[in-house]
Amino acid sequence: MTQDERLQPNAAGAPQQAEADTPSAASSAPGEADEHHCEEDVELSGHIIDSLVLPKVLDTILTLGGDFEFLDVRIGRTPTEPSYAKLRVRGRSRDHLQWILAQIGAHGAVPVAPTDCRLQPCERDGVFPDEFYATTNLHTDVRLGGEWIHVQRQEMDCAIRVDPEARTAVCVPMSDVKRGDLIVVGHDGIRVRPQRPSHRAEDAFHFMQSAVSSEKPKRVLVREIAGAMHRARSGHEKILVVGGPAIVHTGSRDHLCRLIREGYVQVLFAGNALAAHDIEQSMFGTSLGISLEHGGPIEEGHEHHLRAINRVRRAGSIAAAVEQGLIRDGIFYECIRHDVPFVLAGSIRDDGPLPDVITDVVEAQRAMRSLIDGVTFCLMIATTLHSIAVGNLLPAETKVVCVDINPATVTKLTDRGSIQTIGLVTDVEPFLNVLVQTLESLRREAATAS
Amino acid sequence: MTQDERLQPNAAGAPQQAEADTPSAASSAPGEADEHHCEEDVELSGHIIDSLVLPKVLDTILTLGGDFEFLDVRIGRTPTEPSYAKLRVRGRSRDHLQWILAQIGAHGAVPVAPTDCRLQPCERDGVFPDEFYATTNLHTDVRLGGEWIHVQRQEMDCAIRVDPEARTAVCVPMSDVKRGDLIVVGHDGIRVRPQRPSHRAEDAFHFMQSAVSSEKPKRVLVREIAGAMHRARSGHEKILVVGGPAIVHTGSRDHLCRLIREGYVQVLFAGNALAAHDIEQSMFGTSLGISLEHGGPIEEGHEHHLRAINRVRRAGSIAAAVEQGLIRDGIFYECIRHDVPFVLAGSIRDDGPLPDVITDVVEAQRAMRSLIDGVTFCLMIATTLHSIAVGNLLPAETKVVCVDINPATVTKLTDRGSIQTIGLVTDVEPFLNVLVQTLESLRREAATAS
Amino acid sequence: MTQDERLQPNAAGAPQQAEADTPSAASSAPGEADEHHCEEDVELSGHIIDSLVLPKVLDTILTLGGDFEFLDVRIGRTPTEPSYAKLRVRGRSRDHLQWILAQIGAHGAVPVAPTDCRLQPCERDGVFPDEFYATTNLHTDVRLGGEWIHVQRQEMDCAIRVDPEARTAVCVPMSDVKRGDLIVVGHDGIRVRPQRPSHRAEDAFHFMQSAVSSEKPKRVLVREIAGAMHRARSGHEKILVVGGPAIVHTGSRDHLCRLIREGYVQVLFAGNALAAHDIEQSMFGTSLGISLEHGGPIEEGHEHHLRAINRVRRAGSIAAAVEQGLIRDGIFYECIRHDVPFVLAGSIRDDGPLPDVITDVVEAQRAMRSLIDGVTFCLMIATTLHSIAVGNLLPAETKVVCVDINPATVTKLTDRGSIQTIGLVTDVEPFLNVLVQTLESLRREAATAS
Amino acid sequence: MTQDERLQPNAAGAPQQAEADTPSAASSAPGEADEHHCEEDVELSGHIIDSLVLPKVLDTILTLGGDFEFLDVRIGRTPTEPSYAKLRVRGRSRDHLQWILAQIGAHGAVPVAPTDCRLQPCERDGVFPDEFYATTNLHTDVRLGGEWIHVQRQEMDCAIRVDPEARTAVCVPMSDVKRGDLIVVGHDGIRVRPQRPSHRAEDAFHFMQSAVSSEKPKRVLVREIAGAMHRARSGHEKILVVGGPAIVHTGSRDHLCRLIREGYVQVLFAGNALAAHDIEQSMFGTSLGISLEHGGPIEEGHEHHLRAINRVRRAGSIAAAVEQGLIRDGIFYECIRHDVPFVLAGSIRDDGPLPDVITDVVEAQRAMRSLIDGVTFCLMIATTLHSIAVGNLLPAETKVVCVDINPATVTKLTDRGSIQTIGLVTDVEPFLNVLVQTLESLRREAATAS
Repeated sequence: MTQDERLQPNAAGAPQQAEADTPSAASSAPGEADEHHCEEDVELSGHIIDSLVLPKVLDTILTLGGDFEFLDVRIGRTPTEPSYAKLRVRGRSRDHLQWILAQIGAHGAVPVAPTDCRLQPCERDGVFPDEFYATTNLHTDVRLGGEWIHVQRQEMDCAIRVDPEARTAVCVPMSDVKRGDLIVVGHDGIRVRPQRPSHRAEDAFHFMQSAVSSEKPKRVLVREIAGAMHRARSGHEKILVVGGPAIVHTGSRDHLCRLIREGYVQVLFAGNALAAHDIEQSMFGTSLGISLEHGGPIEEGHEHHLRAINRVRRAGSIAAAVEQGLIRDGIFYECIRHDVPFVLAGSIRDDGPLPDVITDVVEAQRAMRSLIDGVTFCLMIATTLHSIAVGNLLPAETKVVCVDINPATVTKLTDRGSIQTIGLVTDVEPFLNVLVQTLESLRREAATAS
Repeated sequence: MTQDERLQPNAAGAPQQAEADTPSAASSAPGEADEHHCEEDVELSGHIIDSLVLPKVLDTILTLGGDFEFLDVRIGRTPTEPSYAKLRVRGRSRDHLQWILAQIGAHGAVPVAPTDCRLQPCERDGVFPDEFYATTNLHTDVRLGGEWIHVQRQEMDCAIRVDPEARTAVCVPMSDVKRGDLIVVGHDGIRVRPQRPSHRAEDAFHFMQSAVSSEKPKRVLVREIAGAMHRARSGHEKILVVGGPAIVHTGSRDHLCRLIREGYVQVLFAGNALAAHDIEQSMFGTSLGISLEHGGPIEEGHEHHLRAINRVRRAGSIAAAVEQGLIRDGIFYECIRHDVPFVLAGSIRDDGPLPDVITDVVEAQRAMRSLIDGVTFCLMIATTLHSIAVGNLLPAETKVVCVDINPATVTKLTDRGSIQTIGLVTDVEPFLNVLVQTLESLRREAATAS
Repeated sequence: MTQDERLQPNAAGAPQQAEADTPSAASSAPGEADEHHCEEDVELSGHIIDSLVLPKVLDTILTLGGDFEFLDVRIGRTPTEPSYAKLRVRGRSRDHLQWILAQIGAHGAVPVAPTDCRLQPCERDGVFPDEFYATTNLHTDVRLGGEWIHVQRQEMDCAIRVDPEARTAVCVPMSDVKRGDLIVVGHDGIRVRPQRPSHRAEDAFHFMQSAVSSEKPKRVLVREIAGAMHRARSGHEKILVVGGPAIVHTGSRDHLCRLIREGYVQVLFAGNALAAHDIEQSMFGTSLGISLEHGGPIEEGHEHHLRAINRVRRAGSIAAAVEQGLIRDGIFYECIRHDVPFVLAGSIRDDGPLPDVITDVVEAQRAMRSLIDGVTFCLMIATTLHSIAVGNLLPAETKVVCVDINPATVTKLTDRGSIQTIGLVTDVEPFLNVLVQTLESLRREAATAS
Repeated sequence: MTQDERLQPNAAGAPQQAEADTPSAASSAPGEADEHHCEEDVELSGHIIDSLVLPKVLDTILTLGGDFEFLDVRIGRTPTEPSYAKLRVRGRSRDHLQWILAQIGAHGAVPVAPTDCRLQPCERDGVFPDEFYATTNLHTDVRLGGEWIHVQRQEMDCAIRVDPEARTAVCVPMSDVKRGDLIVVGHDGIRVRPQRPSHRAEDAFHFMQSAVSSEKPKRVLVREIAGAMHRARSGHEKILVVGGPAIVHTGSRDHLCRLIREGYVQVLFAGNALAAHDIEQSMFGTSLGISLEHGGPIEEGHEHHLRAINRVRRAGSIAAAVEQGLIRDGIFYECIRHDVPFVLAGSIRDDGPLPDVITDVVEAQRAMRSLIDGVTFCLMIATTLHSIAVGNLLPAETKVVCVDINPATVTKLTDRGSIQTIGLVTDVEPFLNVLVQTLESLRREAATAS
């Protein structure tokens, strides 16, 4: 291959520019030969090289069976300068091309000549138009009247509902859509902004991106998580904790109580089991009938959680049970004392359940969505079901730490692709213990400094 | 220690018999010295030695801090003869003794002089009396008017509701109890019949009891499972299948379809995901966007399950979608064609969900309970949440096979203590493949034989 | 069935006694009808009911296809009194019977009329006689000249070598046997004493027997392990630590160093990796190239362990490297300073290896065996290969605690059947941290008390 | 930022070229200001964008705290055209720069003005010079007398031994180096060629790179693995199988036997356990005492492997045992019949071991190295220790498939970073079963076609 066969940006700028000037001609002229229907010019800009954006776009095109040609490339000379690339993308058919464009769109490649997004009304409550655009969890804009509008409440596997008059767009789940709602269909006029990994040394999430290993020095990681939580709290951001009953079983309840008391938890999501065993411990000193004191089984202990649930059902709610003095300590006692809102979402494994449990899962999702807005940090502890459910609701930019002794849970979460999810395979109790201690030190340091 | 200090059944029967004749005197005379309140005579009979019943009872007494003395022992001379033992059990206090009696009661030790069970009415809907007896999953009787009545719908972690006029007793979950219902409280008048492991060579569940190993020759196990299913079908018993979406992901859908068509599935329990991916495959040929044909990702495939759900929501139900020709094959197509009832229970992870999903988890539990009666064999495939939920609903005598590639799921199920639960750590697709083939052979053999 | 059909110890002692008096007649008369060859009378004594010995024996007989009949049963009236049972065991053939007897012998059932053990000489170095008796890890005696001799160095999967003149017996592995050595063959004259589970509350190993769960309150367990180690140290018993490189990777090195310094480690077994990464940290401050300070990768860090190994090879040995000041802290530094003997056993994964590594695995086994005598407590930390290898060498009476974050490792160890093995699924660093702290408290308490 | 601040390849080729012409001036002029010592110009060429080479280089520089500036970029216009980039890399110090260069060198970035590699002699047998260059498993060249020489027997964690007269270079492990051997030190004159992922549809390893999931349709993957093995066999390439004893335990022995007979195995690596249980099955029909026929335990079966080992030790070797008719079928029988060389590497868990086991692990590594040359495909089945050990010996270009039901084993292997390693979490028996069947079909197709 000679150098002539290659794109020579230095020497051959002009003709490429000419090509690049007519992208819509190439891609949209109706009635022309088939091959013209099957290509479209897209552009990327920003840190597209070192953030892997450009390579991923190219890799995606080839993997999906498409083809590409560079029309223009300008690479930032230094790490802080942004780069720019313009590509012509080809597919086997118009549909194939649209599919490729949608995929690389999720990596930030936008058509050079964008059109407005297409809207279609719902014909029935709870049913999208057939061709609805299915959302990702990445920051997304839709084009309306020639302008890009930011989509609110970003969430994956939803549709985008547009209010053309108010010029607003919002992610909406299938079950919440109403007849007549205008929904974005197809892939036109949609722009997705990929997450960019950070190289800043002060970023807690710097090198931990795939830190699922159980063989790493974890005190360091815990220190960085504590730092992120401390910064979130100092900045009056919202921290969400999602927890499973192992928090109680492993004897870690007091650590979480302390996090709540000291203002590190603004929202708590859990299931019936966490609350039931938390209250069981308050009432009986056991968890699943095991004494948290001496680690052995207790007389009739395996029934304690049922009796605890039964008593709270009689009281009417956890809050009422706290008021009546039936519950005098524990995670949910602290939540009620410190006005930390919580959602207890039901599952078919539930005993009882507690009266606070939202037994309808779609209602439970709604309740969680209503509390998620503004959450910048999410700590998931020892629960697969709730972690994955909440992970599905969170936008990609929310920092998520998933702690579990089971690598499978951690892998499932981190596989979801957000670069902001850190998995930590470790034991819950010592993790929370060290986290609480580290936050204490950070608070003292901050107090001394000010 | 001399031999004289020991109980010598051969020589010293008479005085013991005398003691044994007055158990109520020893255990129940009111107003006597405290120690007399703290002992009670119990008896065990059946295969109490080789089924580990007696040793477990003794071990339980000592582990719980109690004490015992043998009053009478008659050991079956041969394996087929039953044995008998009478013990005096002592606790530190009346409460301690009651607790010990309840525990050993679950192993089949019944007081020599049983009293009637105690009943108390519910004061509120959905709330048991404080001292409700919490059920196990073992065959249980309650004593009413001097007679033992069998408790119906045996299920763990429920209470027992008694209708004294109809002389019936039934397990009832907390959420289903009504004001005024009479509930068994305390431990008096309750008799639990422990499961007995079988040594019969023809029993499929013979040596497989703890067969969680991934390093065993599994074809043999699969053959025995097939045998049990074949016998169940021949005897017109009900087989319940509980399945997760990995059945579709792993390309095993056709195997399950065939089991349904050929009459090996009488009830199906699953969640939104199994149905959604099953229907996704019917509509798009993919599962989670992966082609089941060539194993690679498909254009826009990750959205297919959402589109499939959306279409069924438009149709109104899976049955309607089958009628309208939207679904032409697959697991739920076969269920509808062959009148196999199913329950789709909701979870907070659900996309959509499908219109058939029961989104209220308590309603879903009720729906499952209503279909469980008469199930003698349950096959759980690749789902932790639903397996554990259904496991909680089943009586101990139902044979359960739990198949999962993740040992943790299998362990959780088999840890529940039913000796009738077999765990099989293996890959779903080859398991179902061999199962289907083996059932085919058994059918052919049976046809030839008759 | 009437009561008459059952063994009635109270009433029918005499005829049974008669039967029981002639066991050898029944079992050993040569040349008689076949069925007589296939039965043998055995007896069990001790806590055979609550320790599950008798039920296991009966279960084993039936599971193996044999049959039994009780000849005599005397059950200890109270928990502290021993019991006694005499059974007639039947097999399908003499071989079948021998096999059953061998199996139940491992549970403590000994023939009523024992004969001497049979001996055969080895014909070649490193090869046993064909019919050698394969040992278990349970306390074993062999009968020689009518007397029972205790077998020394009990170890599973070996043979028993007898010196008839010295009247000694010892377990010997296949590779260590010499031509002419006298080896026990068959199952005659062998008595195995099963382990008995303890109910004593002060026993650290009381209720933890199957404590593999990752969802238990572990601080309690750690406290009990610390208690056992403290008692071992106070009693001048030997504690063996078996460790994997995760001790260094997880930042737990200092904890183990402290255990060594404070006298809680009398022997250390490990592989090349633990030593290489320990010395890497001494020399470079990294483990596998990861800084133990800040948790991130270090310049050229992935090569550090190779360079560390290379330097020690130049020095000639770890001890020489310590002397030359190349190693100034760490696990092996402490071992050398405090005269704690160690074995580094080679594996085919090894880089280097370090000059102290015994590269021949049979030699390494010998080196480990030579240090095992007198070990009463063994702590295995985060190594599958070495844990299983050492587990194979230890007698069942040695208390073993196996700590690993991977449940599979723990299960493999505890599956081996010794009731004295406790598995703990937890993270290494916090485990060792709490262990060290708890031992410190115990030491202080002891100092105050005396 | 204006466009002028960015590198504009289209417009500003000339001045950049000028800069690029004097890289050695910038990077190597001695005695100049310190900052000049800390920069070096490197170039990359090939498919550096879509293969992620360039992005990884940039990411590495930034992650390690360095800085860069683009001097020249020419991007291939189409997917088949190669690209080219020249960068100026800066570090904080000369050492820091060298470290960065070494790291990006492993991704294919080579200095514009390369020097010869530096050589130093070993002072002692088995010890490298202090600054030895530690190898990767990637294709490497060293520069000698101005020419690039390919390094033979590429293997990670070795050093490179150079024979300047013969102009050859070869990887050599620490234990095999001799006094006087010339070893490459530092990072000068070393060029590493990164692996390039393939997008060719016919490549079996196309989209499977991280296919560790247990929830995928595996028949497709197995088909592709079969295709790769079939092509390897047709091309007379060498296939290496590394296997653990689960091959026998799971009843998969016959499948592997068939692979050997039909020419799909040219080399076999295993441990004592695979051979012992293979031979146990030949002699006794059991594996670990479990009948492969009916899945249950066999009389005295747990001792069978010991007796099998003992008999082979008496015979002298596996080959001798085959000759004497002691072994009449099985994996090692087929190896001997079909002249397939094998290495049995010892481990400290070994019973016996068999006389063919190389008990010295360094010798075993040597034996494996001697058979690895020319292996293009490696199938690792159900063994962690041997898989990782062999993985360490293989160059990155060897295609490796690792099959295990335990995800941890698969993850460990695939984490090692070769893009050519495919992990498959599945059950061994059905995997081998389908593999054998698929190869059979491929053979038939090939026969028909020719």
